[in-house]
Amino acid sequence: MIHNQTIDHQLNHRSIRAFKDQSLNKEQLTTLYNATRQTSTSMFMQQFSILHLTDPQLRQQIRAISNQPYVGDNGDLFIFVVDLYRNQQIRQQLGQDDGRLHTTDIFMQAVEDTVLAVQSFLTAAESMDLGGVILGSIKNDPAKLVQVLHLPKMTMPLLGLQVGVPDQQPQLKPRLPLKFLAFENQYPRDLNVADLADYDHDVAQYYDLRDTSRRVDSFTKQITGSKLNSGQPTKRDELAQVLHDQGFALDWN
Amino acid sequence: MIHNQTIDHQLNHRSIRAFKDQSLNKEQLTTLYNATRQTSTSMFMQQFSILHLTDPQLRQQIRAISNQPYVGDNGDLFIFVVDLYRNQQIRQQLGQDDGRLHTTDIFMQAVEDTVLAVQSFLTAAESMDLGGVILGSIKNDPAKLVQVLHLPKMTMPLLGLQVGVPDQQPQLKPRLPLKFLAFENQYPRDLNVADLADYDHDVAQYYDLRDTSRRVDSFTKQITGSKLNSGQPTKRDELAQVLHDQGFALDWN
Repeated sequence: MIHNQTIDHQLNHRSIRAFKDQSLNKEQLTTLYNATRQTSTSMFMQQFSILHLTDPQLRQQIRAISNQPYVGDNGDLFIFVVDLYRNQQIRQQLGQDDGRLHTTDIFMQAVEDTVLAVQSFLTAAESMDLGGVILGSIKNDPAKLVQVLHLPKMTMPLLGLQVGVPDQQPQLKPRLPLKFLAFENQYPRDLNVADLADYDHDVAQYYDLRDTSRRVDSFTKQITGSKLNSGQPTKRDELAQVLHDQGFALDWN
Repeated sequence: MIHNQTIDHQLNHRSIRAFKDQSLNKEQLTTLYNATRQTSTSMFMQQFSILHLTDPQLRQQIRAISNQPYVGDNGDLFIFVVDLYRNQQIRQQLGQDDGRLHTTDIFMQAVEDTVLAVQSFLTAAESMDLGGVILGSIKNDPAKLVQVLHLPKMTMPLLGLQVGVPDQQPQLKPRLPLKFLAFENQYPRDLNVADLADYDHDVAQYYDLRDTSRRVDSFTKQITGSKLNSGQPTKRDELAQVLHDQGFALDWN
């Protein structure tokens, strides 16, 4: 294995959900933004934006949507927004129609831009010995999220990211062995769940700091359990409708 | 600005599209995979896979789809796959139905997992003084792409990534100034395209190594031009249908 500062941070990545009561300073913030800004972007269209939520009321509203006590608590909270509004404005103000902005193709490109930026931001933070957690939970109520953030059509908040000085030391959470994840030339269709027994055992050794009183379920138990089971409909099921309402991917039907 | 090895690589990121005739060695490959594997993953579901294309015929087929001469030329070619097949197999073999696997919500989580992994992989490569380019062009013909890679339903190739020893030194391509990209609390709806004049000037100084004979268009010219204009339908417009055919996001209509 090759080692350098970046690789070692990556190999040791763990999500941090408890932060010291200390906000990012201006230099840290500027560095994070500038490192993120240079991330690859599809066709150079730069179709994402970042909201830094410092307003206590907004942070509380995002916490309520996420339903996670650490969201908007200590640490700086960022929301990464799929942003086709900016390019729509440019086109409209320069006398062009919306062109392909409402296609699935361009929507997915904007999603890709946004997620690449999220990972760059987190990587930059971790290189500065900060920690962070990516928050998919902001999409627990997509319509409310758009409303709380007063976002125009052609924008969609995709992921949150909370960053700060770590105040916990979680175990490294074991990921799938490479033989289940990375393949040469041919994608294997012959997965045998029995082959996951060793990995299941490894995962079940892990203690989640969100509930330190018990180990987590094995991987296959998590996959066959409530995380993916159909249950009562939730507001997360409204995502497709909200994306449509925001003007995205109107060719998807 | 804070500086460290990671940040400096990020600030200097440029896509590399020409590589020396030299493949990754086993140690480099293993390091890249292991660094990528530890990336954040939504709900710990790990819903992506990586295909390493070493077969010349496959590489040629991907080049034909991408319609870019450098794709599958020198350098190692990887395809990052949105993968709900693995978790579907786990659920089915353990006697569960597919649960929420066909929802937009879970599809988007898998897309997020996949794109986070792409950026981690590229970051790791750049830290080792390799270069790379993310390839959205593999989606130029989504149905053909799935067919060429013999992929089962519940998988979708999302992005390519070509990595290797750089054989070019592109200029740093200037990104949008932070005032257009990062905001505190409130997303601004009052973009005035005239405010982009300075940035347009900066972009127009850039020479694209894909066509060294001329500078690139200004940013607003790119946004109002053929990249986003509606034109003749292309196979890129088939993305939504192919995603549907692959079993994703069946609640989107």
